[in-house]
Amino acid sequence: MRLYVALLHYPVYNKNYKTIASAVTTFDIHDLARLSKSYGVKRFFLVTPLEDQQRLARRLIEHWITGYGATYNPDRRAAVELVTISASLDDAIKEVEAVEGEKPCVVATDASKHNARSMAYKEAGKMIASERAVILLFGTAWGLEKRVLHEADYVLDPIECGTGYNHLSVRSAAAIILDRIISRNWN
Amino acid sequence: MRLYVALLHYPVYNKNYKTIASAVTTFDIHDLARLSKSYGVKRFFLVTPLEDQQRLARRLIEHWITGYGATYNPDRRAAVELVTISASLDDAIKEVEAVEGEKPCVVATDASKHNARSMAYKEAGKMIASERAVILLFGTAWGLEKRVLHEADYVLDPIECGTGYNHLSVRSAAAIILDRIISRNWN
Repeated sequence: MRLYVALLHYPVYNKNYKTIASAVTTFDIHDLARLSKSYGVKRFFLVTPLEDQQRLARRLIEHWITGYGATYNPDRRAAVELVTISASLDDAIKEVEAVEGEKPCVVATDASKHNARSMAYKEAGKMIASERAVILLFGTAWGLEKRVLHEADYVLDPIECGTGYNHLSVRSAAAIILDRIISRNWN
Repeated sequence: MRLYVALLHYPVYNKNYKTIASAVTTFDIHDLARLSKSYGVKRFFLVTPLEDQQRLARRLIEHWITGYGATYNPDRRAAVELVTISASLDDAIKEVEAVEGEKPCVVATDASKHNARSMAYKEAGKMIASERAVILLFGTAWGLEKRVLHEADYVLDPIECGTGYNHLSVRSAAAIILDRIISRNWN
């Protein structure tokens, strides 16, 4: 499996649909790193152009890798070692390309259905199982800017829970999506 | 569907397998409330015997229901309205019994496999679809005390991600488990 995950803090929307760079949430780092480690994701890119937010993230990561956290909780260390802080999505994609020798297929996620280039979980699961390099994008705040969705190769179908209410945290959404595309038997 | 969720802060283990009452994490309240609302859970019990932790949780909930948060983010309000703070698991079970007219089937979750009374996702999904009242228990910190697992009617199979690493946050685990038992077609 050559799956990568990127959590974007820019460009994303705020609640008034203005494009912003969101603040880093430490729980996102912990939860998505452990999720990535559990499901065999090769690298988890934390994408933010804001230098102070990069510093904050770096401090947290160092705590778990070389600081007190490394001996306090070695399991968490193994997860946090998967994190790379990137200034932009392009940087993350280039890094995957350098490692994998091919441009990854870019699959964005969104809470709404996109008819153009939409991708079902089954298709995503099969593509990942086929050993194609894939980078899966998650947005913070009120979600990924339209431009990111337009430029992605595919947009994964939204999580439909059957109630019409779909205001999941990005932590919950990432957990559900990784489980759906990796652990379900799609054959 | 007559599904209830309880997040237990007591009795749970700390990393040295001593029984403790853990501190409430505000992200757990937000994430599990929104998850519960999304999947049609009838009520989410936040279980802690510690009065200061009950107060903390109550303050947060009131912020989203009647405070500034209610107008800032009405979607979150709808989710947080599902939360009931309970002093003990027994209290939560009694409340379900009073509403449903029957004792709910108690299904605990754990990161390890329990051969006695273990339950597969498929069985749990079918039981919930059959309209049996069910309360699903999640543990904070290092997981539910053995006594809770022994007293439960069933213990759900652990999430197996295929890598051998399973140190998911309770937020991730709850998201994956609810999605597996509710949104998969188990027929």
